[in-house]
Amino acid sequence: MLSSCVIGASGYTGAELIKIIHQHPEFDLAACFVSQGSSDANKLIGEVHAVLGGQGLGSKHRLQMQELAPARLSELANTYDAIFLATPHEASHDWAAALLKGSAKIFDLSGAFRLPDASVFAKYYGFQHEHPEVQKKAVYGLAEWYENEIKQAKLIAVPGCYPTASLLALKPLSDANLVKPGHRPVINATSGVSGAGKKPSATTSFYEVSLQAYGVLGHRHTPEIDNYAQTQVIFTPHLGQFKRGILATVTVALKEGISATQVAQAYEKQYADKALIRLRNSWPKVDDVANTPFCDICWKFDEDSGYLVVSSAIDNLLKGAASQAVQCANLAFDFPSQTGLISSWT
Amino acid sequence: MLSSCVIGASGYTGAELIKIIHQHPEFDLAACFVSQGSSDANKLIGEVHAVLGGQGLGSKHRLQMQELAPARLSELANTYDAIFLATPHEASHDWAAALLKGSAKIFDLSGAFRLPDASVFAKYYGFQHEHPEVQKKAVYGLAEWYENEIKQAKLIAVPGCYPTASLLALKPLSDANLVKPGHRPVINATSGVSGAGKKPSATTSFYEVSLQAYGVLGHRHTPEIDNYAQTQVIFTPHLGQFKRGILATVTVALKEGISATQVAQAYEKQYADKALIRLRNSWPKVDDVANTPFCDICWKFDEDSGYLVVSSAIDNLLKGAASQAVQCANLAFDFPSQTGLISSWT
Amino acid sequence: MLSSCVIGASGYTGAELIKIIHQHPEFDLAACFVSQGSSDANKLIGEVHAVLGGQGLGSKHRLQMQELAPARLSELANTYDAIFLATPHEASHDWAAALLKGSAKIFDLSGAFRLPDASVFAKYYGFQHEHPEVQKKAVYGLAEWYENEIKQAKLIAVPGCYPTASLLALKPLSDANLVKPGHRPVINATSGVSGAGKKPSATTSFYEVSLQAYGVLGHRHTPEIDNYAQTQVIFTPHLGQFKRGILATVTVALKEGISATQVAQAYEKQYADKALIRLRNSWPKVDDVANTPFCDICWKFDEDSGYLVVSSAIDNLLKGAASQAVQCANLAFDFPSQTGLISSWT
Amino acid sequence: MLSSCVIGASGYTGAELIKIIHQHPEFDLAACFVSQGSSDANKLIGEVHAVLGGQGLGSKHRLQMQELAPARLSELANTYDAIFLATPHEASHDWAAALLKGSAKIFDLSGAFRLPDASVFAKYYGFQHEHPEVQKKAVYGLAEWYENEIKQAKLIAVPGCYPTASLLALKPLSDANLVKPGHRPVINATSGVSGAGKKPSATTSFYEVSLQAYGVLGHRHTPEIDNYAQTQVIFTPHLGQFKRGILATVTVALKEGISATQVAQAYEKQYADKALIRLRNSWPKVDDVANTPFCDICWKFDEDSGYLVVSSAIDNLLKGAASQAVQCANLAFDFPSQTGLISSWT
Repeated sequence: MLSSCVIGASGYTGAELIKIIHQHPEFDLAACFVSQGSSDANKLIGEVHAVLGGQGLGSKHRLQMQELAPARLSELANTYDAIFLATPHEASHDWAAALLKGSAKIFDLSGAFRLPDASVFAKYYGFQHEHPEVQKKAVYGLAEWYENEIKQAKLIAVPGCYPTASLLALKPLSDANLVKPGHRPVINATSGVSGAGKKPSATTSFYEVSLQAYGVLGHRHTPEIDNYAQTQVIFTPHLGQFKRGILATVTVALKEGISATQVAQAYEKQYADKALIRLRNSWPKVDDVANTPFCDICWKFDEDSGYLVVSSAIDNLLKGAASQAVQCANLAFDFPSQTGLISSWT
Repeated sequence: MLSSCVIGASGYTGAELIKIIHQHPEFDLAACFVSQGSSDANKLIGEVHAVLGGQGLGSKHRLQMQELAPARLSELANTYDAIFLATPHEASHDWAAALLKGSAKIFDLSGAFRLPDASVFAKYYGFQHEHPEVQKKAVYGLAEWYENEIKQAKLIAVPGCYPTASLLALKPLSDANLVKPGHRPVINATSGVSGAGKKPSATTSFYEVSLQAYGVLGHRHTPEIDNYAQTQVIFTPHLGQFKRGILATVTVALKEGISATQVAQAYEKQYADKALIRLRNSWPKVDDVANTPFCDICWKFDEDSGYLVVSSAIDNLLKGAASQAVQCANLAFDFPSQTGLISSWT
Repeated sequence: MLSSCVIGASGYTGAELIKIIHQHPEFDLAACFVSQGSSDANKLIGEVHAVLGGQGLGSKHRLQMQELAPARLSELANTYDAIFLATPHEASHDWAAALLKGSAKIFDLSGAFRLPDASVFAKYYGFQHEHPEVQKKAVYGLAEWYENEIKQAKLIAVPGCYPTASLLALKPLSDANLVKPGHRPVINATSGVSGAGKKPSATTSFYEVSLQAYGVLGHRHTPEIDNYAQTQVIFTPHLGQFKRGILATVTVALKEGISATQVAQAYEKQYADKALIRLRNSWPKVDDVANTPFCDICWKFDEDSGYLVVSSAIDNLLKGAASQAVQCANLAFDFPSQTGLISSWT
Repeated sequence: MLSSCVIGASGYTGAELIKIIHQHPEFDLAACFVSQGSSDANKLIGEVHAVLGGQGLGSKHRLQMQELAPARLSELANTYDAIFLATPHEASHDWAAALLKGSAKIFDLSGAFRLPDASVFAKYYGFQHEHPEVQKKAVYGLAEWYENEIKQAKLIAVPGCYPTASLLALKPLSDANLVKPGHRPVINATSGVSGAGKKPSATTSFYEVSLQAYGVLGHRHTPEIDNYAQTQVIFTPHLGQFKRGILATVTVALKEGISATQVAQAYEKQYADKALIRLRNSWPKVDDVANTPFCDICWKFDEDSGYLVVSSAIDNLLKGAASQAVQCANLAFDFPSQTGLISSWT
């Protein structure tokens, strides 16, 4: 068993990480940390996350949320094999350098190390990146696309939820060089409310939630998508009236003369052997992937007009965060990507 | 046209009052007030309540949320014919005496003056009632039951949402003396999230909302129901996963020998001529009354066991608050109860 | 009072028509019809539509759903001033010619007469159009855009719900000739479940509903949008997990050199004086327009990239069907467009 | 590995059984059956249940829904160790005798064998019970209460969803003889829509679903609760606006002189060592148990009035059906009750 801990264990993503690692055959969940002064400090997991009570994680067990003093970071880095950071961008940014000094591999779910260009980071994340040397070491944890890089890295920047859904849909096309130049792919995506985190706000108050666009022509996930899709996109996120999941619908003008067969080959080539991508022949539905680590994808191409529509669905807290982090950890420690995420069938 | 104002216009109930009065044929909405220092002060109605924009209430109009200095209360009391208080219990408690010095009739939607017994008030509302003399003047605004009292009063304490749903279902039985002594009626009620008000909280955050009991064996609406049902009850409220509406299901052991005919007569006697009560022969459904001023009621009696189940549904923001306040105002100014709430049919 | 009837009164749109006309100051609801053999025949309105019970429409009244024998159509056409057809495409197609022989004005909410090109109709509606002479008389009832045509016409083809939301967002741009040639506007729209009608199906079963695209690159509303936007579009509808409302998000590449000011002028020019269009400075939300006759619109233009995103929200059963039909009737009989839909404010 | 099959694999409960057994360390899912003529016959699991695609259950695998000819029942009974019947009451009733002739243990999720009294069965299930000899062999599969009986039995009648939630809340009180005679416990319960099964109907159509009582004073689960609670109850089920889960709130008058300590002891005694019962100190919430095999319970007792309120929550498809069936199978084959349902923690 490899030893692991979750830092930032009191949020929605933290809960999912705990649940997954707890059931994982190769990783042991050795500790959970919350920030100093957190009102969840010293509580049992089952008290903070009611849904987890009783899974060997509740009242009968001593596993508590520990306060994390930053001074302990280097100690942690030499105590655990894998450290999952479900922390705010700022915390990940500040702590990664210390954590990298030990032997642990770091799986950071924040946006701190996803973007190679620090100036873009400053613009979209609102603070200056002060650790370019750490950024250089980070690899992008889009598990189906950067497997080799992830295997080598000590710091994996796990993608955002919208970029995961968007890139898994779009990247087979851009990678196969099928996208028509001068026509930006248009990504419309709708996320469940958990994407906004646990802190109560007017925006996520039950009475106020109703389908609505936000962050139009300026959302911080746009440069992340642009960068890894290798094409500029128009990305419009929406808040949806459901708890978890993301549906992305991507409209792409393809180069002239492309056939549906070429499109099919592009998707098959990338995903035919990927356990957690389901190429479907019906349109993906949020609830078919909720509480699962899968990404469902379906596309249709109109050869006459040259336009293609591809739709992808993920659970924003899982494939868009926690389960993809564990996928990365599986790869980094040489287990099959889906280990501990779905059962094998023999 | 009678002149009216709404104090506490920025909350969910305030929005409903504005909408109703604005469309009312007899009342003019002359002003909207918010508390001093409110972030909604000086905003237009359509900015505070997006749903109301453009109904002659938005950008094209000058109607603004005004800050209310308590010093102005007596001025208001002589300016308007009707004053609707959609204010916290404490504010209503503090302000009613001043407002009663003028000519206006006061329709208070808070709990400040619903309970005749000040000691019960202190226990359930957490502060001492300092205006027993005002309390004595208040009548309970359960419109279908206290019509004559409402017509005479200057201060109407509009019932809470749960008591409205519960009493409209239960009171025909207790009033007809059918309830078996020693067996408390059991009221289970489920409210939409708007019942908890507009302020964001962990409880009403979208991701957290899921059917759940609360306030068990101690909710502040219990003494209000006990008092006006003239029988002690077991009242268990629940939070439901919907925006508006309340469903109350009431189980009552009846005295021995009561027949279904007697029960039918009890309901018919009270409600046959009431425009806003719909005695139905199918079970009430929250969405059939949402956005309406109606209370739907259906009951079934098992003569063998002597148990009766009656279910009632209302919109908690309307019949449970704003539209009932306007019903009271209609009665107080001698209009038919449903004026401005439903169209007549000729 | 003008006399009117609703044919196809048992569906969701029929219910909304009944409710609106019943409260309308200028139209009298004289009769409701259902198809021959309908299980709703001879029922009272309040029995078929529980939400309408008691509004002078329920048990106390004699207004019943009458079976409509096609032989009676010409009689109807000379009995009522306005006839609202909330009928299937086939029924409207078959009946319009007979109805036009009388004096009544016909407001058809089906797709039978929206498309001038019969071949497109056959492809998307699956049957041959046999009444081109009737089609020629029809005008398109997008109320804010074809006011003069509607005033003159005897047959108004009320737009579909998706085209209403889409065209109200897009048409100011295409009309002002701002859309970049060769780049199709991309419309992603999500509709509440009521858009699929009342008949139970696996698709609209509660457990199955979850955000999902459908009708991709082939939905029947596409040619309707193409035709009236005067530009070909990529239209992707989605089913959303809510009861009523549509949100459309439209991404448009504009011609080079267009400024945000020009865009603002295009929207202002068309909508500044329209009572039922709300140009907002926050992003439209489905629940802000649900149960209202409004269309909320907000846009943002990125001058650097030349891409514009505009989002619009309507209630699919109202502005997308029933209230727009009444808007058309208002115009056809020379009342202000919003008569009976919102109160005036003086 | 023990060999098992699921009969009735195309419904919602069938899907849950497949998912659980597929991941179970002791049971192998060897076959899935649907009724003869089913439209799902010969489809792959991942085609019938989209959520299950790709879990080794989808396109890459040959596991298909097989049509089950009744003539094959005795063959099945000697092929598998465990047979799960997720079939209609009638099918289970007709088939159990044949299945019992083999070596397999039968876990029947229908209502066919839950009630010892055939006359009650006829009244509530609408057909005559023709297999009293089979009924006599059946034991009631309420796993936490009939462990010894389940271990011995060949036919386990897995409880209904409402009885599971109700009995787990109420039975500690009735078993400890705390319930006041002559006062029926009042059970109000609300179920998610999946409880009504997969077949589309007007009742479960998305637009129609809204909180509503049904089956009042006559639901078929009442005699099941009465029988196993050993006290008559008033049971009122409701349909809730959510997909899965049940919340039951039970109000009970206790005998005079009972203390809260006695109540606590009654619950502790029964459940302290039960892995899948979580005695909580906050009120159970549907979403905390959705997608889990747990039952959450919380109670409060008012010594003054003698009334107790206890609330329980389960996932209707899991603890109310599939996971409880597997609990029974675990017991019947001498595994710990929670095997394959939650991970152990060491």
